[in-house]
Amino acid sequence: MEEAAGDGDGAGAAAALGQRLATGGQGHVLRFWPELGGAARRALAAELRDMDVAEINRFFLRARGDGGGAAAAARLDARMEPVPRDVLGSASRDRGLLPGWESRGLAEIAGSRVAALLLAGGQGTRLGVPYPKGMCDVGLPSRKTLFHLQAQRLRRLQQLAEEQHGTPCHIPWYIMTSGRTMESTKEFFLKHHYFGLKKENVIFFQQGMLPALGFDGKILLEEKGKIAMAPDGNGGLYRALGAHGIVDDMERRGVQSVHVYCVDNILVKVADPRFIGFCLEKGADCGAKVVEKTNPTEPVGVVCRVDGVYQVVEYSEISLATAQKRGPDGRLLFNAGNIANHYFTTAFLKDVVNTYEPQLQHHIAEKKIPHVDIATGQLIQPEKPNGIKMEKFVFDIFQFSKKFVVYEVLREDEFSPLKNADSQNGKDNPTTARHALMSLHHCWVLNAGGHFVDENGTRIPAIPRLKDANDLPIQCEISPLISYGGEGLEKYVKDREFRAPLIIDEDGIHELVKNGM
Amino acid sequence: MEEAAGDGDGAGAAAALGQRLATGGQGHVLRFWPELGGAARRALAAELRDMDVAEINRFFLRARGDGGGAAAAARLDARMEPVPRDVLGSASRDRGLLPGWESRGLAEIAGSRVAALLLAGGQGTRLGVPYPKGMCDVGLPSRKTLFHLQAQRLRRLQQLAEEQHGTPCHIPWYIMTSGRTMESTKEFFLKHHYFGLKKENVIFFQQGMLPALGFDGKILLEEKGKIAMAPDGNGGLYRALGAHGIVDDMERRGVQSVHVYCVDNILVKVADPRFIGFCLEKGADCGAKVVEKTNPTEPVGVVCRVDGVYQVVEYSEISLATAQKRGPDGRLLFNAGNIANHYFTTAFLKDVVNTYEPQLQHHIAEKKIPHVDIATGQLIQPEKPNGIKMEKFVFDIFQFSKKFVVYEVLREDEFSPLKNADSQNGKDNPTTARHALMSLHHCWVLNAGGHFVDENGTRIPAIPRLKDANDLPIQCEISPLISYGGEGLEKYVKDREFRAPLIIDEDGIHELVKNGM
Repeated sequence: MEEAAGDGDGAGAAAALGQRLATGGQGHVLRFWPELGGAARRALAAELRDMDVAEINRFFLRARGDGGGAAAAARLDARMEPVPRDVLGSASRDRGLLPGWESRGLAEIAGSRVAALLLAGGQGTRLGVPYPKGMCDVGLPSRKTLFHLQAQRLRRLQQLAEEQHGTPCHIPWYIMTSGRTMESTKEFFLKHHYFGLKKENVIFFQQGMLPALGFDGKILLEEKGKIAMAPDGNGGLYRALGAHGIVDDMERRGVQSVHVYCVDNILVKVADPRFIGFCLEKGADCGAKVVEKTNPTEPVGVVCRVDGVYQVVEYSEISLATAQKRGPDGRLLFNAGNIANHYFTTAFLKDVVNTYEPQLQHHIAEKKIPHVDIATGQLIQPEKPNGIKMEKFVFDIFQFSKKFVVYEVLREDEFSPLKNADSQNGKDNPTTARHALMSLHHCWVLNAGGHFVDENGTRIPAIPRLKDANDLPIQCEISPLISYGGEGLEKYVKDREFRAPLIIDEDGIHELVKNGM
Repeated sequence: MEEAAGDGDGAGAAAALGQRLATGGQGHVLRFWPELGGAARRALAAELRDMDVAEINRFFLRARGDGGGAAAAARLDARMEPVPRDVLGSASRDRGLLPGWESRGLAEIAGSRVAALLLAGGQGTRLGVPYPKGMCDVGLPSRKTLFHLQAQRLRRLQQLAEEQHGTPCHIPWYIMTSGRTMESTKEFFLKHHYFGLKKENVIFFQQGMLPALGFDGKILLEEKGKIAMAPDGNGGLYRALGAHGIVDDMERRGVQSVHVYCVDNILVKVADPRFIGFCLEKGADCGAKVVEKTNPTEPVGVVCRVDGVYQVVEYSEISLATAQKRGPDGRLLFNAGNIANHYFTTAFLKDVVNTYEPQLQHHIAEKKIPHVDIATGQLIQPEKPNGIKMEKFVFDIFQFSKKFVVYEVLREDEFSPLKNADSQNGKDNPTTARHALMSLHHCWVLNAGGHFVDENGTRIPAIPRLKDANDLPIQCEISPLISYGGEGLEKYVKDREFRAPLIIDEDGIHELVKNGM
C-alpha cells in the first residue's frame, strides 16, 4: 500500500483533488485515503475527477430550499386546476377523431420523422431482479421480454407506415440506460440481434449519476474508497441528451417528434401514431398521455395546472380533500393520471437542453443509505432514512411548453406497469402484467370475429365465467409483428374457433397443448 | 339390513314413494334401495317425501326451454338499453341531494319501518373455508368477522336514528341461511350474544334446496341413499319468504322498506339510510345499488333494460361489442355494475311471494357433480360438467317492479367482496377486503382532520409513498359503533396525530404496538 501511495503522480493529483474537495466542504470523502491501495485510490480519484462538487452543493442548497410538508401541500391545493377540455384528446370521448389522428401519425412515421425514447435507467430493485427491467420475462406463452415486445411493436409500426405510404422508413429508438444498466442492456440487445431492428437505429446513451448526501449535504461513502452514487432520476434525460449529443443526432436524422416512455409498462404503445397525430394536429410542443384516475387514493401523479402552468402533482403531494374533489359529471376533478408517456418536438427538446435544463431543480428523496461512518470507518445499515438522493423528473419540463396537450387513453388498452414481485396483494407485478396483455389480446381476437371454445368445444363467453379462485384470463398472445393495436387480425381469426393457450405470430397460429407452457 | 327392509310400515310407504317417483320418471333414485339399511332408507324416504318431483320436472323443462348460447346473446345485445338518467341517483353526481336522502332514510329507521335482509345461504367453497362466509375474519386489527361488522353497523344506525329523532327504534335483521349454514350460523350468533343486538330482532330462516340433475333431467345421487342437493340460488329468497311467513312477520313489525344484501361485501352499508331515503323519495317499490363498471371485461352483471323491462344482464351473457359500447361522455354505456344490494318495499315483496314468484324460471348452471352411477353403483368424480344445478337469482324479480330505481355509489366507499382465498392474483380475497376497509377508515380519519405520522414523527402524506412491494395501506380500523359512514369522528381525531396501527372503538383510541398484531 505504501508503494502505491508513494506514486508521485498520484500524490500530486490527490493533493489537487483534496484541495478542490476541501474548498467545497466535501474533504471528508478522502478521510480513508491513507488506508487505500493503489487501485482503490486510482478508482476513487477517477470518480471524483468528473464530479463538480461546487455544482452538487448548489443542487443541494436549491433543492433544500424547496420547502415542503403539509403547509406546502395546502398551498398547492389552492393553486391546482384540472386540465381544460380544449387541450384534452380522449380515446374514449373522441372516438370519431381517432382514425384521423392515427393516419396523421402514420404519415409522420412513414416520413421517418418520429423517434421513440425509452427510459431504462432504473434497476428492478422492487421487482427483485438483478438485471434491467426491460429484460424481464413475465411468463407470457412466448416468453418475450419487455424489450422484445417494444422492439417488435416498432417493427410492426414501420411496416404499417410503409404499407400505407409506400416508402421505407425507420423509427430511431433511443435508449437511456444508467451506469448500472448500460452493459447488460447492450449485451442483451446484441445477443438478440436487436430483435430484428437495424443496429444503427438503436441508440444507447447513459444518464448521469449523483452522489447520495447526508441531511447535512455531505457526500456519503458506500465504501472507504467509493462514493455512494445514484442515477439522477428519469429527468436526468435532459442533461444526458445534451451530454451525448442526442438532440443533434435527432436533427441529423430528421426526427421532429419524440415519444418518451418508461420501460415498465407491458402494454406501452411505442411511438403510438394516434398520440403523435393528436399532438401534431394540436400543434403541441409537449404532450402527456394519461389514464383516468378513478379512485382518489390511487398512488398516481396527476397532470394539472398550478398557477396556470402545467405540471404533474405527485400523489404524495396532494391532500385527500383535493384528491376527492369531483366535477359535476361525478368524475374526479384531478383525474389525468400520469403514466410516463410523453410527446416532445425535437425543437422543444433542443430548447430544454440548451436553455431550460439548468433551471430545473432536483427533487429530494429521503432514503435509507448504507454508508461508511466517517468517524469510525464502520459500515452503517440505517434503519430509518439518513440521507437523500437528488433526482429530476422527466415531467419537470412541462412548465416550459408553449403548447401543452393531454391525451387520455383507456387503462385496459395501454397501461399495466411492472413494479413489484408477485405477492399476495398482487398489484403491478408479473402476474398482473401478463394477465393484462393476454386479456387485451383476447379482446382483439373477439373483436376481429374469432371465438374461443372450452375443452368440450362449447364457446366461451366474452367475459368468461370464473371457474376458480385464480380468475385466469384466456391465454392468448398475439405477436406485435402481427398486430400493433388489434388491427389486421380478421384474416387470422374471423369466424374461427380456438382453444387456449393461443399464440398468433409470424409463423402462424399455434394452439398450445393445455398446460404445455 | 333385511330386518330393516322388512319393516311393514316402511315397505308400504316405499311402495307409494316408488310409484310417485316412477310416474315422474325419477324411479332410478330408488335403484339401490335393496342395499340400504333401515336408517339410510328412512333418511332417503324423508328426503324424497318433501320433494315435489312433478314440480322439479316442470322447473327443468322450463329452464331448458330458455334457449341460450351466442345467438341468444346477440339477440339480447340488440334489446339492451342503459338505465336512463331520470331513474338514477348517484353518490358522485348528486352530492347535494345526499343529506336529504340520508335524513329521510334515518327518519324511516327511527320509525322502525326499515329492515335488513342478509343472503347468507352460500358456503365459502371458493374461499376455501368450511364455515359460512359471514364467520370469516379477514385479519383486521380487531379480528371482527363479517357478521360482527354488519351487526355493529345496524346498532350504530339505530343509535343515530334515535339520537336524531328521540325515539327508540329497531332494525329487524332477517338472515337467510341454507341447510348447510343454518346450524353453524345460529350457533355463532348465540355464542356472540347476537353482537349486542336484541335476539328477537334477528330472524333466521332457511332457503330451499333442489336436487342436482343430469343433462337429461334425471336426479343425481350423491350416495346410494342420498340425493345430490344444492341450495336453489339467492333468488330462493322469495319462495323461502313465503314458506316461512317472513313477509307476514315484516308486516306485523310495521316494516315498509327492506334492504337485501349479500354477506360477502366487507364495506356493505347495511340498511343504508341514503339508499333507503333515495328509494322513498322516488316512490320506488324496487331499487338496485350499483357501482360504475369501468373495464368492459370486468366480470360483473349490469343493471339495464331489456325490451323496456329492468333486469340484470350477467357478464357471461353480454357480447364484447356491447360490453365495450361507450356513451358520449366516454363512460361504458352499460356501467351499472350489480353489487347485490337491493331495496324492496314490503308490499312489493308480498306481491312477489303471492303472485310473481311462481312465474320465475330457474337458471341453469352446468357443473361437475360427483354422483353414483346408476348402472354400476360406482362413485363418479367427473372431469367436465355432467349435470346442472337450478337456481333463481335475487334480481329476477326486477321485472315485476312498477317503479324501479338505481342508486350508484363509489366502489371505494361501499364495495369489496370476499370471494376467493388469498392468492398471487389477488382479487376479492381476505387481503383485498382488509385493505379496502382500512383504506376507507384511513380516509375517514383524514377527512375528520386527523393525521398519521411515521416512526420518526413525520406526517405521512394522504396517499402514502410506496415503500415496498407490499403496498400496504395505513392500518386503521374504526368500530362501526363509533361511525357508520365516517360521521362523528372529529371529536376523536381532529388535529391529532396518530401512529398506525390505530383502532378507534367504544373503549377509546388505541395505537397498537408496531408489529404487535
